[in-house]
Amino acid sequence: MKKEELLGKEFKVLDKGFVRLVDVMGDDDSIVQAARVSYGQGTKTVHEDRGLIRYLLRHKHTTPLEMVEFKFHIKLPIFIARQWIRHRTANVNEYSGRYSEMTDDFYLPDPEQIRPQSTMNRQGRSEEELPDQTAMEIRTKLLNTQIKLYDEYKDLLNKDLARELARINLPLSNYTEWYWKIDLHNLMHFLKLRLDSHAQYEIRMFGQAMADIVKQIVPVAWEAFEDYQLNSMAFSGPESKVLKELLSGKNIEEINFESHGLKAREEREFKEKYKTITS
Amino acid sequence: MKKEELLGKEFKVLDKGFVRLVDVMGDDDSIVQAARVSYGQGTKTVHEDRGLIRYLLRHKHTTPLEMVEFKFHIKLPIFIARQWIRHRTANVNEYSGRYSEMTDDFYLPDPEQIRPQSTMNRQGRSEEELPDQTAMEIRTKLLNTQIKLYDEYKDLLNKDLARELARINLPLSNYTEWYWKIDLHNLMHFLKLRLDSHAQYEIRMFGQAMADIVKQIVPVAWEAFEDYQLNSMAFSGPESKVLKELLSGKNIEEINFESHGLKAREEREFKEKYKTITS
Amino acid sequence: MKKEELLGKEFKVLDKGFVRLVDVMGDDDSIVQAARVSYGQGTKTVHEDRGLIRYLLRHKHTTPLEMVEFKFHIKLPIFIARQWIRHRTANVNEYSGRYSEMTDDFYLPDPEQIRPQSTMNRQGRSEEELPDQTAMEIRTKLLNTQIKLYDEYKDLLNKDLARELARINLPLSNYTEWYWKIDLHNLMHFLKLRLDSHAQYEIRMFGQAMADIVKQIVPVAWEAFEDYQLNSMAFSGPESKVLKELLSGKNIEEINFESHGLKAREEREFKEKYKTITS
Amino acid sequence: MKKEELLGKEFKVLDKGFVRLVDVMGDDDSIVQAARVSYGQGTKTVHEDRGLIRYLLRHKHTTPLEMVEFKFHIKLPIFIARQWIRHRTANVNEYSGRYSEMTDDFYLPDPEQIRPQSTMNRQGRSEEELPDQTAMEIRTKLLNTQIKLYDEYKDLLNKDLARELARINLPLSNYTEWYWKIDLHNLMHFLKLRLDSHAQYEIRMFGQAMADIVKQIVPVAWEAFEDYQLNSMAFSGPESKVLKELLSGKNIEEINFESHGLKAREEREFKEKYKTITS
Repeated sequence: MKKEELLGKEFKVLDKGFVRLVDVMGDDDSIVQAARVSYGQGTKTVHEDRGLIRYLLRHKHTTPLEMVEFKFHIKLPIFIARQWIRHRTANVNEYSGRYSEMTDDFYLPDPEQIRPQSTMNRQGRSEEELPDQTAMEIRTKLLNTQIKLYDEYKDLLNKDLARELARINLPLSNYTEWYWKIDLHNLMHFLKLRLDSHAQYEIRMFGQAMADIVKQIVPVAWEAFEDYQLNSMAFSGPESKVLKELLSGKNIEEINFESHGLKAREEREFKEKYKTITS
Repeated sequence: MKKEELLGKEFKVLDKGFVRLVDVMGDDDSIVQAARVSYGQGTKTVHEDRGLIRYLLRHKHTTPLEMVEFKFHIKLPIFIARQWIRHRTANVNEYSGRYSEMTDDFYLPDPEQIRPQSTMNRQGRSEEELPDQTAMEIRTKLLNTQIKLYDEYKDLLNKDLARELARINLPLSNYTEWYWKIDLHNLMHFLKLRLDSHAQYEIRMFGQAMADIVKQIVPVAWEAFEDYQLNSMAFSGPESKVLKELLSGKNIEEINFESHGLKAREEREFKEKYKTITS
Repeated sequence: MKKEELLGKEFKVLDKGFVRLVDVMGDDDSIVQAARVSYGQGTKTVHEDRGLIRYLLRHKHTTPLEMVEFKFHIKLPIFIARQWIRHRTANVNEYSGRYSEMTDDFYLPDPEQIRPQSTMNRQGRSEEELPDQTAMEIRTKLLNTQIKLYDEYKDLLNKDLARELARINLPLSNYTEWYWKIDLHNLMHFLKLRLDSHAQYEIRMFGQAMADIVKQIVPVAWEAFEDYQLNSMAFSGPESKVLKELLSGKNIEEINFESHGLKAREEREFKEKYKTITS
Repeated sequence: MKKEELLGKEFKVLDKGFVRLVDVMGDDDSIVQAARVSYGQGTKTVHEDRGLIRYLLRHKHTTPLEMVEFKFHIKLPIFIARQWIRHRTANVNEYSGRYSEMTDDFYLPDPEQIRPQSTMNRQGRSEEELPDQTAMEIRTKLLNTQIKLYDEYKDLLNKDLARELARINLPLSNYTEWYWKIDLHNLMHFLKLRLDSHAQYEIRMFGQAMADIVKQIVPVAWEAFEDYQLNSMAFSGPESKVLKELLSGKNIEEINFESHGLKAREEREFKEKYKTITS
């Protein structure tokens, strides 16, 4: 899709949210243009723009990426907004529950997302699913509570309670909206963290929607970001020693991880990386 | 109170919140020390430390204030945390509802704070109170809903729903906690905005608690902050022209505000400032 | 001038510098658009866009101003770049003396700018001028040294000394270039400080050139910025008490400044403000 | 060395510079303390502090590292100050050449650092040395010019030229001083970049001096930083495919790099990593 077609188009996320590209400053060429200011005549040998962009991403020369700016209009549940806002290098204008009435949009998870606590990962949900009936019961309960809470909110407003107080019992599943503006470097940092499998599913969906937009605006930088960031794999100092043994022909079963300072948890993490690479 | 007595002490805020000074780097002397690096031998004429600090605050030479750092532990309702976090120049570690169970602490306003929507100020509550009985009814309703929502939360956890999902119907009145670290310059900026009468009452109470701590750590800088920031009054270009007429002996009733470009709203704002000064 | 005419146009600053608007995201409408997200239906009473923008500037609701972004290409002497870079909320790509050869452009002040140290202001130059001949001698000396230093630089490069070392004796008057990207709120903050009479003349000239561009892109916001920021005047708590006496009809000669806590320096500062208002 | 012994001690860097730890807030325990706020009861399974800190560093959960703050007093050449200041997440008070006279300290490289331009690396100096005599000639020339420029500076001051102008022909080798305050997370980011072999030698020396201090204040976090950041090695998506072939037993000579999208430069970069690991 062309920039002109992307601008203003609402991309649905979750049940009632969206991501909409409001404005954008720059593209792949702007990155090259800014880099050439830094390197002056010095860049003649890296004569190709694609090569230059990939070089910048590979070597984390990220300031030219800051010269591209994105502005999104986003509708998202408050509990996601609370994770999102921790990224401090963006500009934000959020809908205000002090000035205006909150809407009756609430996030209700799809049944297949209503999952048990993960046993492996203290912060996440399991890959397993709850029994269908339990999931449906939970979903109905969540919905009923949301309806009830909005009724109470309206009732409090009708009693003329100040908006800034009437809202305090609205739940974190209530949707809010904001304009969010950020440069490409910081957006990539956001996406690297929020597209990660450890990020909460709901924010990953927003990350994915933005990624789909961004890759159409800066296709070359995006490809480099995938190659050098998203799909890159880092090995710690101790892990490098394990890698050395493996490269010398040893089998992974023969490795004495503890001798390299890798305890149970790190051994498990290494083996996951190994599996990813060799599969 | 001495720094040693302040450290670690819990100052209650609202019904269940608190502010606790965890650590502090520097004091009034650190401001002087940093300023003298900038001005080198040049400061000999401003030989007195108090004079130097006041000069810095008066002329908004704020970088030496950044050399003092405060770290607080704060327990606050989520709807206040959402306003607070908009100040981006701080470091934050917040309690995580993904890792851990939320507590059953909820903010329940005192009856006298249960007020109607302001008619003058779209974002705030009125100076008036609601009828006693209405206020009490609202309070009971808020409380009952909070109890019910926490029961539901516990029930969802018992059904083994992942914590990151079980919490989505918890209300904005639920308390959270964080460590919050910020330098004195940015803290003063925060306090100027959040001690203002337009800030929501609940965040003002936290601002006040922090102000009471800060003024004991940097008494000279705090006094200057009050004189030159908190209690200062700014007149716009157009307002300065009104001021000129008043200083030339005119009575405020004789002023033609529109001729100076001040429409109804700005005329009212000017008159409030005038009243504050002359009363 | 229209945005299209402004884009890319080089505006000369000082003897060899320039300011060039490379790109811009947004205009006055973008400010309104972002503000209306925050205030939702709440803004119906401030129905006029101009009124809304002026309201935002007057009450320092600055986040909607962050939704407009400017990108400049600037050529400036290094000693000015060192002051400029202290504003941390911008994105920068600077010409690199490690990658590329520095050019032989040096800042040589106009004779009328070659002034003595100010006696009133420790950080600035006097309003007085040096004798013509002294000024011309100084200018010639500066020029000759610049030529000599560049010759030495070229000579070191010819001896194959690494660029990153050959440059270390180049003077602060040498010109550098950068791309500089910043949002409108932070740009206004920069301009408020750098258009001030206490800022060094040379950076003021760059500030003025950018101001001339910005006011054509966001005319309504700029007018509000002039009224409420550039031309505003703040009175401290103690000064407000003096103002009260003056407004009650006292003559400035009758004021006992010390009784209000204003020492000699602050008395002088107050009198300057008074003069500005009443003249 | 204990914190008490480190505080205030001047560590020499280069010929006339230094690094001095002025103040510090927190230590390894502060990181754990802040992390436990986030994870609440959730951290019971990572019961060991060292394990927790290493977990945080390994998984880039960096906000608890922001809870430790360092304040340094640094004396450094201006051309290094210009690279340094690009790190925007710090607080700075620099000596001002407008307020005060610059000192006559200039950086004069040791003869063995007076090296030719690198042929491999456009931004750096070679591993080779210049002929001894050439190096000594260059050094003498640099020194003489520095002496001459300072004489001219003093002469201009004697003619009463304003300090802010008299300094414009002082060279980038002139020393300046500043107070620099930064949190541990951002300091580690600074050090990762500035300890790298691509950073200019002179700033690396300052990085090394700070590293030597920091590792004594937060030994556990520093060890984790070395293991997971400084000594870690990242492989891009395409490189991972090469790694897969190598792990399956292929010899590096048999690899067809182009088939994995690695052109000449990236092939060379991969081989360097391979050499580092396997040596």
